[in-house]
Amino acid sequence: MAPAEKAFVLRKKMDTAIEDRPGQTLTDDHQVKVAIKATGICGSDVHYWKEGGIGDFILKKPMILGHESAGVVVEVGKGVSSLKPGDPVAVEPGCVCRLCDYCRSGRYNLCPHMEFAATPPYDGTLRTYYITTEDFCTKLPKQISVEEGALFEPMSVAVHAMTRGNLKCGSRVLVMGCGTVGLLMMAVAKAYGAIDIVAVDASPSRVEFAQKYVGAKPFTPIAAKENESLPDYAQRYKQAIIEKYGEFDFAVDATGVGICIHTAVLALKRGGTFVQAGNGKPVIDFPINHIINYEINVLGSFRYAHGCYKQSLFLVSNGLVDVKPLITHRFAFKDALKAYETVASGEEGVLKVIIGGPDA
Amino acid sequence: MAPAEKAFVLRKKMDTAIEDRPGQTLTDDHQVKVAIKATGICGSDVHYWKEGGIGDFILKKPMILGHESAGVVVEVGKGVSSLKPGDPVAVEPGCVCRLCDYCRSGRYNLCPHMEFAATPPYDGTLRTYYITTEDFCTKLPKQISVEEGALFEPMSVAVHAMTRGNLKCGSRVLVMGCGTVGLLMMAVAKAYGAIDIVAVDASPSRVEFAQKYVGAKPFTPIAAKENESLPDYAQRYKQAIIEKYGEFDFAVDATGVGICIHTAVLALKRGGTFVQAGNGKPVIDFPINHIINYEINVLGSFRYAHGCYKQSLFLVSNGLVDVKPLITHRFAFKDALKAYETVASGEEGVLKVIIGGPDA
Amino acid sequence: MAPAEKAFVLRKKMDTAIEDRPGQTLTDDHQVKVAIKATGICGSDVHYWKEGGIGDFILKKPMILGHESAGVVVEVGKGVSSLKPGDPVAVEPGCVCRLCDYCRSGRYNLCPHMEFAATPPYDGTLRTYYITTEDFCTKLPKQISVEEGALFEPMSVAVHAMTRGNLKCGSRVLVMGCGTVGLLMMAVAKAYGAIDIVAVDASPSRVEFAQKYVGAKPFTPIAAKENESLPDYAQRYKQAIIEKYGEFDFAVDATGVGICIHTAVLALKRGGTFVQAGNGKPVIDFPINHIINYEINVLGSFRYAHGCYKQSLFLVSNGLVDVKPLITHRFAFKDALKAYETVASGEEGVLKVIIGGPDA
Amino acid sequence: MAPAEKAFVLRKKMDTAIEDRPGQTLTDDHQVKVAIKATGICGSDVHYWKEGGIGDFILKKPMILGHESAGVVVEVGKGVSSLKPGDPVAVEPGCVCRLCDYCRSGRYNLCPHMEFAATPPYDGTLRTYYITTEDFCTKLPKQISVEEGALFEPMSVAVHAMTRGNLKCGSRVLVMGCGTVGLLMMAVAKAYGAIDIVAVDASPSRVEFAQKYVGAKPFTPIAAKENESLPDYAQRYKQAIIEKYGEFDFAVDATGVGICIHTAVLALKRGGTFVQAGNGKPVIDFPINHIINYEINVLGSFRYAHGCYKQSLFLVSNGLVDVKPLITHRFAFKDALKAYETVASGEEGVLKVIIGGPDA
Repeated sequence: MAPAEKAFVLRKKMDTAIEDRPGQTLTDDHQVKVAIKATGICGSDVHYWKEGGIGDFILKKPMILGHESAGVVVEVGKGVSSLKPGDPVAVEPGCVCRLCDYCRSGRYNLCPHMEFAATPPYDGTLRTYYITTEDFCTKLPKQISVEEGALFEPMSVAVHAMTRGNLKCGSRVLVMGCGTVGLLMMAVAKAYGAIDIVAVDASPSRVEFAQKYVGAKPFTPIAAKENESLPDYAQRYKQAIIEKYGEFDFAVDATGVGICIHTAVLALKRGGTFVQAGNGKPVIDFPINHIINYEINVLGSFRYAHGCYKQSLFLVSNGLVDVKPLITHRFAFKDALKAYETVASGEEGVLKVIIGGPDA
Repeated sequence: MAPAEKAFVLRKKMDTAIEDRPGQTLTDDHQVKVAIKATGICGSDVHYWKEGGIGDFILKKPMILGHESAGVVVEVGKGVSSLKPGDPVAVEPGCVCRLCDYCRSGRYNLCPHMEFAATPPYDGTLRTYYITTEDFCTKLPKQISVEEGALFEPMSVAVHAMTRGNLKCGSRVLVMGCGTVGLLMMAVAKAYGAIDIVAVDASPSRVEFAQKYVGAKPFTPIAAKENESLPDYAQRYKQAIIEKYGEFDFAVDATGVGICIHTAVLALKRGGTFVQAGNGKPVIDFPINHIINYEINVLGSFRYAHGCYKQSLFLVSNGLVDVKPLITHRFAFKDALKAYETVASGEEGVLKVIIGGPDA
Repeated sequence: MAPAEKAFVLRKKMDTAIEDRPGQTLTDDHQVKVAIKATGICGSDVHYWKEGGIGDFILKKPMILGHESAGVVVEVGKGVSSLKPGDPVAVEPGCVCRLCDYCRSGRYNLCPHMEFAATPPYDGTLRTYYITTEDFCTKLPKQISVEEGALFEPMSVAVHAMTRGNLKCGSRVLVMGCGTVGLLMMAVAKAYGAIDIVAVDASPSRVEFAQKYVGAKPFTPIAAKENESLPDYAQRYKQAIIEKYGEFDFAVDATGVGICIHTAVLALKRGGTFVQAGNGKPVIDFPINHIINYEINVLGSFRYAHGCYKQSLFLVSNGLVDVKPLITHRFAFKDALKAYETVASGEEGVLKVIIGGPDA
Repeated sequence: MAPAEKAFVLRKKMDTAIEDRPGQTLTDDHQVKVAIKATGICGSDVHYWKEGGIGDFILKKPMILGHESAGVVVEVGKGVSSLKPGDPVAVEPGCVCRLCDYCRSGRYNLCPHMEFAATPPYDGTLRTYYITTEDFCTKLPKQISVEEGALFEPMSVAVHAMTRGNLKCGSRVLVMGCGTVGLLMMAVAKAYGAIDIVAVDASPSRVEFAQKYVGAKPFTPIAAKENESLPDYAQRYKQAIIEKYGEFDFAVDATGVGICIHTAVLALKRGGTFVQAGNGKPVIDFPINHIINYEINVLGSFRYAHGCYKQSLFLVSNGLVDVKPLITHRFAFKDALKAYETVASGEEGVLKVIIGGPDA
């Protein structure tokens, strides 16, 4: 019989607990069971905790949190050939249908049947064991720790954004937002040959981090004038950026904030590409005429799709991206709530917070 | 000495005249001189006439109007091998630098040095002769009239929009706006294998025209509720469309109106493509979160680039698109002002209005 | 208990029999059981029958023949939502792993674990029932017969070849070979906007068929001179084609014959695309310098991948391709061997031969 | 009056001389005159010298040699804005029509009217001054010498080959041939994120150079057996490579030798890409069935097109590629013949040989 588990559960808004859960058994020949050893916290996790929902996704019953995890394989189905017990792996959260057009063409992030970890009503990965299919596990070589493997999740978000925009070697890149995902975008962009990566964030310490981390060029937002319209503000803001650094081939937003999006689009040169990855208000003011006149490509980027974890593995294992500097805090599984509080504090110096495995 | 010319000149806002102009001579071996025989009127022409400018383009001195023209070659430079006097040609308006990255890669519509016909301060094509380079002329076979050739300009706008969006055979297509450009988009989309082309316009007669012209499926906009927010209105509007016709692979806007753009984007299925071609207000409310969650591609489309005129020729000469039904009114050159008044009237049944050549 | 079945079995080279087989039961929730009603014969089927193998695929034990089939769903797994008993369907032959990079990115034709119907050692579809997964069935609307559905298999080969080459509207196309697949390539190319489709085949009656079928322009191969080298012959052959019809944007080979491939590549214009689909000798003389100097794209096309059956459905159901004229002979299941003999005869006028279902 | 010039002229096969030539004057407002300071020698230059022709290009009258040059601008036309006298520049050899479809879409390497330097009957760059258009000059920043600028020509060949194949970060790459172009391909591939670059050459010292230069993995060809067919040899050769290094995503040939091309194609994994850049025999034995079964992309790459020089500048100026180690020999202009003899010697340790400017 499968061993019982511990799980970090969001019972309802602002109410978490470590609970016992019954053991799980494999239900398919290609599944593997992974003992979770490290889980990063993402802004969305905190949002569920504090608000009990995001947009249309409302918590209606207790849900296990967590979706940025890595661990060690403890059991494999009889059809599994790529993994064996003892293998350390980064885990792609979620389960897809494998039958729809999206799944069959590599865009399973768009699968309408996606059951994504820690998105209501589906349980997440902050538990003793997580069961998934072998192809949703990325085997880690010896030199990569499970903590680094946990970072493959936000890194895959970054890889996917660059892939969506088809970033070319030699591109001039503007990144709005210097949180974990924004920083990873810069790191991936640099690995892909970007130059003059300009990092924008309201927090000077984060911009400074970006400078040290990938040699990004710093820019701190200008303030809006009193009663200034958002379009006017965006024009001035954009002017300030391009006077300092010139126009960009590629811009990406990791903030979800209207003024950042608006400004980034305006800062592109003719034929430039803008990728939107940061979630925020559903509707914003948008410079649509600029999209026409400059023939801008605006591309939405949602999570990650086929190949992103593999690319993350490639970039980290070849030393092209170093995710370790992004890990600023660590908590034992029993202190998972403190980890959430730390992220929620918004304090200076908090980037990626990692929670250890239940057995740690 | 080159023969003197007649030209239809916009002297200032609401003030036009047919003026005499001195004859022009070729200044480059690859130039040709075309006797203009037919010129269509575009919404932008009327806008310059009535408002004296569009956006940043302000009329500061008299300018010859017109940019949708075709005619007959009367003189060729000594380096010209593709044309000879007597050849009927459709004329691409404007002159580009041929040296910038955009010109050298087929996207001369983005050339920062573009001198576009009838965009201040550059003179247009409503004159006796227009001089351009041989590769900006498309030779018309016998079965295509110069009137049809004049339609190659808006048709190239349609071709370019479909090309920008990489429309695939079998796509379900939504077109917002049933003016000349919207109708030509439908015709090109059909030629490229689109199915279930849905035509939307506030004018029932235009929607009906689209039904007859390309077998489009009709949709007339629903009205906004009192005090309804634009996003709420767009959600209801989109719901009404997809309940009737389902979601779309591809949508294109030829109106420039915020609610149309917003609704069209929402009506796309996951991974869908939206092309923005219609000019309007520079900033609009935009469903940015939908762009992320559905990984929508939003692509600006500006005029046309390398290959569009050639593709227009192919489509018309092979009977895949028939532009003749779009020509609803014809005026002699001396009555050019009446032609403008007809377009400006916005009357039912006015689509493309053609002005004959000065010598007609 | 599942009903017993009849099957048309290749016991060994030149030795077939209709055998009884035990009934099969579904083994997965997403499987469906299809009563086979129509099966086309392909050249590879005949080759297995006459030679006992193709290349590395050697018949080592009895194998059920057939892979171009359509039928009616008789049973569905409990997870199946897209089909129900009674639905007529075209069946994609073969079973893939769904876990490898190829399966996950839409290129399951390259799956190294592919178990393709009627390729040793895997059984084919010429049996009472064929079990497959729901997403490998394409539901046929009322106006499309199961016989037409059986043709979706070779048609998907044609669709895939055009897709691999990214055929553009307005392309000039050369097709080597006017068998079923070659003819379907012409039909698909025409639907995609190809012009001046030139059909080449050693059989004048087949070339004539291509003329009637899709309006192709005819070309019958020139003969080689005594002692002429293949490259010299190809140069003369190509010269004869382009003198008559000009150079091509796109060429495709459906013969597998060295001189056809060589000639087709030479007949392309600079930057042209060649797709190789026809199987033949593994190694041929090839004009590699022309590939460089003209920057030709040479693309292999193997069977079909994600989306091809759906596209076939679209093309047939919208009347863009008519597969019915290709069906020249029909046999009852009990006369399956006669059907093979008919194809093997190579007689004039034999195109697609269809075998009915065991219950017919 | 324009100053007289010196030029290194190939009078006829094996007969060169330094000759006086009359001064040249600018004939177009966008032209610039460049004082040539450094010129690399390419295999084709030597071939013209020793054989008096290559393929269809036969020397029929004296021709100035050289096409890999850089220098300093000494005069600019009145329309030139991007350059001024004194600017050091890398020079793209050749003059194109700017009017054909190829020129207008960035593929001017395919322009049928190309007048390429030192390809009969067009004069090359080994002269005091070379006149070209401003957009065919790439301005060198201070840290890049004119000698390095001369290397932009073969480097652009390498950039173009990688661009043709759309090399992706993380690809496993096989390069056949370790001459200057092969080595530059490895360097560019590495900059684009290639891993496990395997370098193959019959010369062990060249393979060793590749190891040191870009960390390539070495492979020295296996020998053919007596009476072994080329296809059999290629199979064994390929087997030896992949047993050591596995299959490849991307392969490129810089040798033009049949066995290398054949083997490289076989060493690709399913869906892999092969780029042919090296010139050699016009027709070779080619594994066409492998192209189908593995859906290989075979792409010809000819010289370079729009954007390659700019990308070379980017890669060198950002330290991603170092061309200096490739320069092994230098000769004064007066000793140009010795430079040719050195290249022709085929001695160990000869890579790029540079000839200085006439005024040096």
